Amino acid sequence: MDYLKESLKLHERLKGKIEIKSTVPVSNEEELSLAYTPGVAAPCLEIAENPEKSYSLTRRGNLCAVVTDGSAVLGLGNIGPEAGMPVMEGKCALFKAFADIDAFPVCIKSQDVDTIVETVYQISGSFGGINLEDISAPRCFEIERRLKEKCDIPVFHDDQHGTAVIVLAGVINALKVTGKKIDKVKAVVSGAGAAGISIAETLLKAGIGELILSDIHGTVYEGRKEGMHPKLQEIAALTNRDKIAGKLEDAVRGADIFIGVSAPGILTGDMVKTMNADPIVFACANPTPEIFPEEARAAGAAVVASGRSDYPNQINNVLAFPGIFRGAFDSGATDINDEMKLAAAFALAGLIKDEDLSPENIIPKPFDPAVGKAVAKAVAEAAVSSGVASGRESR
Amino acid sequence: MDYLKESLKLHERLKGKIEIKSTVPVSNEEELSLAYTPGVAAPCLEIAENPEKSYSLTRRGNLCAVVTDGSAVLGLGNIGPEAGMPVMEGKCALFKAFADIDAFPVCIKSQDVDTIVETVYQISGSFGGINLEDISAPRCFEIERRLKEKCDIPVFHDDQHGTAVIVLAGVINALKVTGKKIDKVKAVVSGAGAAGISIAETLLKAGIGELILSDIHGTVYEGRKEGMHPKLQEIAALTNRDKIAGKLEDAVRGADIFIGVSAPGILTGDMVKTMNADPIVFACANPTPEIFPEEARAAGAAVVASGRSDYPNQINNVLAFPGIFRGAFDSGATDINDEMKLAAAFALAGLIKDEDLSPENIIPKPFDPAVGKAVAKAVAEAAVSSGVASGRESR
Repeated sequence: MDYLKESLKLHERLKGKIEIKSTVPVSNEEELSLAYTPGVAAPCLEIAENPEKSYSLTRRGNLCAVVTDGSAVLGLGNIGPEAGMPVMEGKCALFKAFADIDAFPVCIKSQDVDTIVETVYQISGSFGGINLEDISAPRCFEIERRLKEKCDIPVFHDDQHGTAVIVLAGVINALKVTGKKIDKVKAVVSGAGAAGISIAETLLKAGIGELILSDIHGTVYEGRKEGMHPKLQEIAALTNRDKIAGKLEDAVRGADIFIGVSAPGILTGDMVKTMNADPIVFACANPTPEIFPEEARAAGAAVVASGRSDYPNQINNVLAFPGIFRGAFDSGATDINDEMKLAAAFALAGLIKDEDLSPENIIPKPFDPAVGKAVAKAVAEAAVSSGVASGRESR
Repeated sequence: MDYLKESLKLHERLKGKIEIKSTVPVSNEEELSLAYTPGVAAPCLEIAENPEKSYSLTRRGNLCAVVTDGSAVLGLGNIGPEAGMPVMEGKCALFKAFADIDAFPVCIKSQDVDTIVETVYQISGSFGGINLEDISAPRCFEIERRLKEKCDIPVFHDDQHGTAVIVLAGVINALKVTGKKIDKVKAVVSGAGAAGISIAETLLKAGIGELILSDIHGTVYEGRKEGMHPKLQEIAALTNRDKIAGKLEDAVRGADIFIGVSAPGILTGDMVKTMNADPIVFACANPTPEIFPEEARAAGAAVVASGRSDYPNQINNVLAFPGIFRGAFDSGATDINDEMKLAAAFALAGLIKDEDLSPENIIPKPFDPAVGKAVAKAVAEAAVSSGVASGRESR
């Protein structure tokens, strides 16, 4: 099927992929008096007295904003906020289908960090959570950090953390398959955009033995001059202990794990051959991966994952974000913190029983209905144990 | 029925009066590839090339933001944005039920004019229109004016213009009933808030003979010192030709029309008796009007309207705003201008045939399905004839 052509037709026919429905009848005077004036004064006054009630007396408790500035939309780059809308609407459709969350797309005209932070903060009282989407690096790091400080609801940049959670789940299971321990292995992350940096941070939090991040300028190390920004400096201080200054091929030599969220074809079979025994290769660039799975396997890779649905072990964001927000909303969480993200990764990994684990089966299938529920439960429990659950009544 | 008590129960049960649905299936890999990546790139690129396509390839063409800062919610006053949400959700339910418009509530944290204008502008690319709601005067005038200048989509403050459109419709028919001409009559508008000022402006645009606006400080006249703001100064320059400085009772003496959007009980039967022959009284304060209809009639009023559903001739905002936005959206209008508002008023008035007109029947019933359609048609035609219809494909 020509997905582009058929998708355009579908969008022309639907005129939008979301619809706002009313849950209340207003077809006569009495119904109007309950849903609207004068009756509506009662829930208004309840909320005025206790703002927490806005989560249960309005849709807020189940409502997530999907916010973009259109600066890094899919593989299309900076196409602007209005043009990013079909992706945001699609994301909202996924929120609904996979987690019964009401999600609403908000496209912001400005690409200025201060303006985006202020705009999202100003409207945050209308929502129970904020999913940032397709905002380019490094601006996305500052935007998320400042919004998390400013807002009293969960803020989560899916391009960073959604991907990182699923990659960690895959790594956990790939290590089981290959009989390696996370604190003894060396990983290389290729790509220092939103996903790459969050993957690096998440692997560090999960206790990875050694990690090298690599980008268009080569390996990232403390003191590097080219292309460094504050977030990259943070990572540089925590990784690449030997300060290897070189290319990707210098980084992967002797590594146990390669994780690519970068560019097509940049990992060769010869490079895989220089990795440690039983190497693990996650080649997530889409649609053309860093190395095609068959080529990686031919070069000796023990476990291979990619972003593609036509190969085993697909890293698909829909595995994580719906359950993460569901768990946050169910627990009334005021944040989505590291504990909750790690819990989501372990829950995802745990969905595949040890006896079912194999090189071709380390990551659950995106359409398995058990996925969202397991992630939500683990995330809600982690919200409680890490102290960010509000205790407010959930849906 | 105890509407307050029952409404609170209803809100507790529903947990919000709107719901966001997906219109597209995403239950397998192929559906996902059409609704989301990779297919979604096609509509994105179409919009990037021609931003007008955002109105037909996303929900935008049928999507209205209902924006408040919670500063003047119903009769409850400044209860804040979160507490205003039940009213905004109710408004969204009305948009859907009466005009099949997808409306979404946006509550802004700040009550600062610059911040509100900037926030709404920044998110305006996500919507086809902006309905401002329950924002206090005089800030509402500047906010609306600046947003109309800044945004390329219709911006409409319903508390001002919705009410004014329905009042004008009622005045048109009340004048027919009493055999008077609009350019020969004198009207008094009591209340210089959002509604009162817009009613005054609208009656002036409709060619009213003479008009006096009256507020808490008494009659409004050029040069008055108390309580004047820029918008009130504009009105003062156009009204009260004889510069009558006095109280409401001085204004109504010899007037043909009294329109109250002010405070309970401030018009007495004795004051009605000082009006011109066959006086017209619209007492819209709610739930307790400026004068109760039976008292106004006892004092000689020829036609009486109020905001109450238990008397004839109810001024109910649901008569206007759904059809106005429907007409604006259907014509792809970039503005809701005076021509469109006047067209809406004449369409509303015209729904009652001359032979059916009577003192008890000057305004259509809110639940008459003909209302929204007639208003939408007239508004769309006026958008075209006044040059603000974009010509873009409508829904």
